[in-house]
Amino acid sequence: MTAEQTTATHVSHASSTAQRVVLSSPGDPLVLEHGARLDRVEVAYETWGELSPARDNAVFVCHALTGDAHAAGDGGWWESLIGPGRPVDTDRYFVVCPNLLGGCRGTTGPSSTDPATGRPWGLDFPLVTMSDLVAVHRRLLDHLGLTRLHAAVGGSLGGMQVLQWAIDDPTALSRAVVVAGSSQLSAQNIAFSAVARDAIVRDPDFLGGAYVGTGRRPDRGLAVARRMAHITYVSAESLEAKFGRDRLAAGPPRHGTDFQVEAYLDHQGEVFVERFDALSYLYLTRVMDYFDPFADPAAARRAGSAGTRFLVVSFDSDWRFPTSQSRRIHEHLSAAGAASRHVEIASPWGHDSFLLRPPGYHELVAEHLDAP
Amino acid sequence: MTAEQTTATHVSHASSTAQRVVLSSPGDPLVLEHGARLDRVEVAYETWGELSPARDNAVFVCHALTGDAHAAGDGGWWESLIGPGRPVDTDRYFVVCPNLLGGCRGTTGPSSTDPATGRPWGLDFPLVTMSDLVAVHRRLLDHLGLTRLHAAVGGSLGGMQVLQWAIDDPTALSRAVVVAGSSQLSAQNIAFSAVARDAIVRDPDFLGGAYVGTGRRPDRGLAVARRMAHITYVSAESLEAKFGRDRLAAGPPRHGTDFQVEAYLDHQGEVFVERFDALSYLYLTRVMDYFDPFADPAAARRAGSAGTRFLVVSFDSDWRFPTSQSRRIHEHLSAAGAASRHVEIASPWGHDSFLLRPPGYHELVAEHLDAP
Repeated sequence: MTAEQTTATHVSHASSTAQRVVLSSPGDPLVLEHGARLDRVEVAYETWGELSPARDNAVFVCHALTGDAHAAGDGGWWESLIGPGRPVDTDRYFVVCPNLLGGCRGTTGPSSTDPATGRPWGLDFPLVTMSDLVAVHRRLLDHLGLTRLHAAVGGSLGGMQVLQWAIDDPTALSRAVVVAGSSQLSAQNIAFSAVARDAIVRDPDFLGGAYVGTGRRPDRGLAVARRMAHITYVSAESLEAKFGRDRLAAGPPRHGTDFQVEAYLDHQGEVFVERFDALSYLYLTRVMDYFDPFADPAAARRAGSAGTRFLVVSFDSDWRFPTSQSRRIHEHLSAAGAASRHVEIASPWGHDSFLLRPPGYHELVAEHLDAP
Repeated sequence: MTAEQTTATHVSHASSTAQRVVLSSPGDPLVLEHGARLDRVEVAYETWGELSPARDNAVFVCHALTGDAHAAGDGGWWESLIGPGRPVDTDRYFVVCPNLLGGCRGTTGPSSTDPATGRPWGLDFPLVTMSDLVAVHRRLLDHLGLTRLHAAVGGSLGGMQVLQWAIDDPTALSRAVVVAGSSQLSAQNIAFSAVARDAIVRDPDFLGGAYVGTGRRPDRGLAVARRMAHITYVSAESLEAKFGRDRLAAGPPRHGTDFQVEAYLDHQGEVFVERFDALSYLYLTRVMDYFDPFADPAAARRAGSAGTRFLVVSFDSDWRFPTSQSRRIHEHLSAAGAASRHVEIASPWGHDSFLLRPPGYHELVAEHLDAP
């Protein structure tokens, strides 16, 4: 395996290290599940805390669809869960979070350069699978000199990676925490993602996927995709509590942004297109659509074969990845004899609850990580 | 009032009459709730059955967001409910259904010609309200020589028109049937419509609303809007039962349409843009967003002041306009002393249930219409 250290940027907030590493080469390509090969996979990742001399305190964090390696520290997307004295305690654990394969935040993806052509991949980037994402995580683990994780933890698409990892390499995980995940998207899940992709590919600035470097970007389509998706990440109740029917200003009906909830969605779209790439959106939603690990009857047995202890967490107001989907994960694992526990947490905030702190949630994760 | 009969097309299916009539003129303009005036409002409508000598058997049908005057007969959107021997029995009732103001199926709307300029209205068409839609219905009633309806019946936006009508002109309605309606959209409802509008207005072919007659149309944006909305009209369960994770063909993951549910949504978008106008989509969703009749504390009392008997129907799997919204209508009416009954029907099909025939639904409507 190639492990060429390309950059090592020490960012400003305490005890975080942001790095990049190249984890495949023409001599050691990443061969994908469906046969394509990637001669160059660069991975951006961050770490927090210190690895113990016994190398037994590593916690690997897998991010969701639009997340990145910056899980903790100032502005980290999981700052509430990860940090000194927090459930994923950086005073005690060595925490690793990479950007995922197919992403756009430092790790190789469809907007990266194809080494064979010197041009951006675009839609020529191969479609990747959950196992491919995990294969890159496993290479990163090797690079870090780790063979077994204290835990792998992830929410949403991150939780799905954790589940796949337990299936693909059960000896690597002592504990697995799958939050607001799924082992099989529903037709409705696929439908929402299909419409989001539709909005992107129909944007004239998508240019058949060849927009990278042209100065054009399908921002309109990507913003529509994000706005729609955002509605599905929150509960109707939380939108109601936050915005109700409040308007920006009184007066007769008008076109354009008038209700507060519209201004909120506008904002969601605007900030999103500045930090995320439309091609990655297409590829990573596809990873989720096809994810169906228990279609292999042996998968659950493999996941439990090395004693990995699973915690599966869902939230009662999550209608995008509802409790029924978490329960299905738990039932597959349990039926195969794996050590699995499923807990549904009461929370008003829908799918986004996994990023927040409804009562009992953090305590549950801490308890699972701390158990001997 | 002007009542210039412009066309009278007898269409092929039995006992239906499709007509158009002009119901406002410069001398008798339609003055809208917020002050704008329309010098020319043409209305397309259909009728079925025969008006009784006592003129007391008329049932007025109000259509939903994307419906039209063709409610019954071959291919009518409410064919299952309206016809000989059906709950809205055309052997006994004289049934009227117009296209609504702001629509694009024969009644004046934003893609019609502005008589002042000779050009399509576009975004210069005034924003209309639920009361404005009802004002046109009332003019049509006058034109037909009717003063009191046996019943007004509508689903979704159609149900909202029925409710507004009962408030604006309580003596006109003996019975009111409000199916899968709402008296106040939720923040989530508004959010979905906001993103749909967003997809339309960001389509480069929207041309600031001035696309009519240019040969260009924001079909891409309108199709995205429709596909997203369609997901919200059906239950997750019904999508699952119909499509699950079935694919068009086996094989590795691929871009584009691959899952059956994607092909279904593609189709929904394609057929929709051939029959509906993007400007009407903007205007009519806005009508719903601002609809909030019980913000006026006297509204419910007015609605019940002439003895109108209300039937409010919701469906347990409807998450777009859930039972809580119908219950709120019923509670406002009941609290004001109106004769109101609310029934939640068990149905697996979500909001679209109002167009279908879950057990008990049609019987309930028939019973309400037949009661002396």
